[in-house]
Amino acid sequence: MSQERLEALQQALFTQQVQGFLVPRCDEYQNEYVPAADERLAWLTRFDGSAGLAAVTTNRAALFVDGRYTIQAKQQIGDQTIEQGELAPSAIADWLCDALGEGDVLGYDPRLHTEPGLAPLKQRLGERGIELRALDTNPIDHIWQDRPATPCGPARPHPQTFTGEGSDSKRQRIAHLLADKKQDALWLANPEVCAWLFNIRGSDIPHLPVALCMGFLYTDGSATLYLAESASGDALRQHLGTQVELVNDKAALFSAAERQHVQRVWADPQLTNCWTLQQLRSREIQVLLERDPITGAKAQKNSVELEGSRAAHIRDGAALCEFLAELPDAVKREGFGELEAVQLMREKREQREGFTDDSFDSISGYQGNGAIVHYRVTPQSSLPMKAEGLYLIDSGGQYPDGTTDVTRTVALGEFPTQAKEHFTRVLKGHIAIATLRFPKGTCGEQIDAFARKSLWDAGLDYAHGTGHGVGSFLSVHEGPQRIGKAHTSVPLEAGMIVSNEPGFYLAGEYGIRIENLIFVKECAEYPGFLEFEELTLAPIEHRLIEAELLTDGERKWLNNYHQKVNDTLLPLVSDKTKAWLEQATQAI
Amino acid sequence: MSQERLEALQQALFTQQVQGFLVPRCDEYQNEYVPAADERLAWLTRFDGSAGLAAVTTNRAALFVDGRYTIQAKQQIGDQTIEQGELAPSAIADWLCDALGEGDVLGYDPRLHTEPGLAPLKQRLGERGIELRALDTNPIDHIWQDRPATPCGPARPHPQTFTGEGSDSKRQRIAHLLADKKQDALWLANPEVCAWLFNIRGSDIPHLPVALCMGFLYTDGSATLYLAESASGDALRQHLGTQVELVNDKAALFSAAERQHVQRVWADPQLTNCWTLQQLRSREIQVLLERDPITGAKAQKNSVELEGSRAAHIRDGAALCEFLAELPDAVKREGFGELEAVQLMREKREQREGFTDDSFDSISGYQGNGAIVHYRVTPQSSLPMKAEGLYLIDSGGQYPDGTTDVTRTVALGEFPTQAKEHFTRVLKGHIAIATLRFPKGTCGEQIDAFARKSLWDAGLDYAHGTGHGVGSFLSVHEGPQRIGKAHTSVPLEAGMIVSNEPGFYLAGEYGIRIENLIFVKECAEYPGFLEFEELTLAPIEHRLIEAELLTDGERKWLNNYHQKVNDTLLPLVSDKTKAWLEQATQAI
Repeated sequence: MSQERLEALQQALFTQQVQGFLVPRCDEYQNEYVPAADERLAWLTRFDGSAGLAAVTTNRAALFVDGRYTIQAKQQIGDQTIEQGELAPSAIADWLCDALGEGDVLGYDPRLHTEPGLAPLKQRLGERGIELRALDTNPIDHIWQDRPATPCGPARPHPQTFTGEGSDSKRQRIAHLLADKKQDALWLANPEVCAWLFNIRGSDIPHLPVALCMGFLYTDGSATLYLAESASGDALRQHLGTQVELVNDKAALFSAAERQHVQRVWADPQLTNCWTLQQLRSREIQVLLERDPITGAKAQKNSVELEGSRAAHIRDGAALCEFLAELPDAVKREGFGELEAVQLMREKREQREGFTDDSFDSISGYQGNGAIVHYRVTPQSSLPMKAEGLYLIDSGGQYPDGTTDVTRTVALGEFPTQAKEHFTRVLKGHIAIATLRFPKGTCGEQIDAFARKSLWDAGLDYAHGTGHGVGSFLSVHEGPQRIGKAHTSVPLEAGMIVSNEPGFYLAGEYGIRIENLIFVKECAEYPGFLEFEELTLAPIEHRLIEAELLTDGERKWLNNYHQKVNDTLLPLVSDKTKAWLEQATQAI
Repeated sequence: MSQERLEALQQALFTQQVQGFLVPRCDEYQNEYVPAADERLAWLTRFDGSAGLAAVTTNRAALFVDGRYTIQAKQQIGDQTIEQGELAPSAIADWLCDALGEGDVLGYDPRLHTEPGLAPLKQRLGERGIELRALDTNPIDHIWQDRPATPCGPARPHPQTFTGEGSDSKRQRIAHLLADKKQDALWLANPEVCAWLFNIRGSDIPHLPVALCMGFLYTDGSATLYLAESASGDALRQHLGTQVELVNDKAALFSAAERQHVQRVWADPQLTNCWTLQQLRSREIQVLLERDPITGAKAQKNSVELEGSRAAHIRDGAALCEFLAELPDAVKREGFGELEAVQLMREKREQREGFTDDSFDSISGYQGNGAIVHYRVTPQSSLPMKAEGLYLIDSGGQYPDGTTDVTRTVALGEFPTQAKEHFTRVLKGHIAIATLRFPKGTCGEQIDAFARKSLWDAGLDYAHGTGHGVGSFLSVHEGPQRIGKAHTSVPLEAGMIVSNEPGFYLAGEYGIRIENLIFVKECAEYPGFLEFEELTLAPIEHRLIEAELLTDGERKWLNNYHQKVNDTLLPLVSDKTKAWLEQATQAI
């Protein structure tokens, strides 16, 4: 069936007079999760991973994915005539240079690409005389018969009891930065930026509680906001107030900017799609391409957001305890496997106040599946679970007061001896980050190795980052801060929430990861220094701890943490779970 | 007197029809230390620090220095009418935009600047309609009456017993990289690059055993090398062989390249001066501006170089022990101060085989002077020393088999109590780096914080890097690797020598630094991992160690290190020093 789709697309290329076309896994907002209407890549190739790009020419097609998805892509492509390559600009350019010739035109949908994303391709293809051309309409949208509608659910006010700061105040704050940069307007490129600035939320995207929107903020704090007509009711209009003009047509955004005599616009190059830049430049508006100031402001949570996050983490921790306490019995049930574990975890969260959605697709990896870092369980892959071996679950919830993300690795019975040393080394790395004090100005890259040192000592490492930023009832993966080997020039600042998730993976055997969310705060003892405070509350499997490998300080941290987990969660869990929790948080 | 010089220069600007001129502390080779003939900045302003730039217009002048030199510059400028600013492109541009107007021309000597160095100025001044113009001759050279001659001492072959690889082999190796990049020639921009490639040394620059030279390497491994006529004798010609053409006129280099039909040249943008680029481009030679491949090759020492470095460090360590052993008596002598300590240290080194020069101006800081990170003692600043307080000496030697750089901090008697905790925290950082194992691909920025963690724990830090590369009988500050907070994308690789020098500085009280040179090697136990081996051998002051602050592992490292220091150096020192060494290396 997909072969037909490919042929239909190749036919459409003739009609549009181009010799090739790019199909990224992307929507016009550069969202991490995309609405079903934007799953063009999956529709075309059957590959449904979270990152990928297909390149199609009149007689060839290739799918480019990263290392996480090589096997999955191969399986999902199946018998279709689609080549496969690495999701890297050089590999994509090589393939295109081979598949296309001088004078050919490669089309792309300018809504689905950013300029920095296309730049390396543009250069390489340009050298070969191949033109990159923005198409007015996406050829797939013409041939995809049963394409779902773009979601346009209601947007609702997100009350100040959760945000801690009114939209007026936020708009004034950001407007000052605009004035400092001598810009007339800030382009609000995506729903997350708008959700924070206007204190609104929605439900248009899986796992991300936002309404699809974009807009402009002006130097006087007023704004124009695009929202689908069905998304805005009276309550929302009242919440937004008279300074925010609503439009329900994207083109109207640019007319509004013209009426405001906007001549200079600040736009984030990573978030702003090429179509928007075309719109601005065709109106002779100058564009300053720099990181959006909202990204930084949004990352530094205020005291109300942090208090909310603490509260959400308490409820979420109680749900996780219910799950972990039930797990030993559950694995004895016939037909209980990785998929059923995800459902059980979700049920436990659903019983907690305010839960709206998982904050991402849970990773539920038993034994060898736990060693696949970005494993997503499917009915086909789901392993039945038994009372033995290691099990890793990485999951999180969206609550109006906070977003959670937690990983625990537990022993379901007997397990390989060496797992204990591996688990303890991961734990030592986790504690090294949790207890770190560092001077202001320090970036995540500069502290990442503390999470790895205990593994490095034994010639081991893990091939992923140590921490990502997390939003406040927003994206579970939020910039600009991160902790990892990759270079970042963004310092960790007070109020930022990050994950602390070192791991270790023994291929085919087991995966280990211990993840808590923590936030950065001023160090009470030493001015000019910062430290972390724990948000996540859940027992760390002590059957997997080699106590002799821990220093006194590490043991003390663990016991204090478990004491706090027990004290906080005990009143909130069922009687059966109470007994489990007391046991799971005993001092070692 | 210098006021006259400034006025003479301002007069010369009229003659050359420019309204301003830049005077950097630089020579045409971008050397860290410059020959006396290139000390134009000191001649003009009296400021003789290692980094700085003066900007002179027809009626104003300013000297720009970094934070290290603010006080020194003020003192040295004295009553001259020279303004003072920060050595940062933005500050220099601000001043120039204020001092010059639209249509004005700012002259510069293209031999003394690189394109990346000038780029920020060019942009800012261009926006203001101020032209940057390369001058054919440096106006200072016309008015500096008693300007010393450019040094042109003999260049000598550096034997393969020290280099471990013949020049033919090195030239073939690098020529292959040239061919890979489709370049016809590599521009050999400075004496260090040439010294390594041709296995030659000289004595034209303070502390750096090189002869002033530059040249081209071609894809067949042949080369053209500029050397002053007086620099090359028969032995050198024989050593260089028939594949290396010598010229004694820089312009002849470019004619030689034309004869070789060179159309594409690879040149390092950080090392290549603007004059050279003018020469190349005026001949329609295309220039590839990328980091010189020799920089990386030179950094990875072969086994002969490492063996040489070990040997040099043994002799150097013995000299340092003689100095440290004599110090308690020396400080009782009338008139013994920081300056005399430097002389004594030099005398001890001079007694060791092969010593040719200090590898840099020693830092000799008693009490509060030790807290000035880049302190250079002068007759005016030299503090008399007594049998009390802390003393820091950072010094090194040039030997044909290796370059050394070592810092020790010692107690000369009673000292402030808290110094012990500070010293021990610095030591813990030093040991953390020394004992680290890390996966291949790791950069210095990613491990720097291990050197700081123990200080961070107490809300302390130091405001300098942790480690720099070191050459093999070449520069004591050699790229491309470093360990520090600053971003670097260069991984640490086997064979690289780096310093390990955490410190702590209490203003007005004392400075503490413990510096050893170490080199990167394959980890015997874990493939894919690297570790360090110590080169420097000298006792670490145990009167300053708070033993309870050390872990068992740290204590073990210290005792093993001291055992090795004692075993290795005892046979090489005087009887009096033997007793001191035994004592200084006792296990704790």
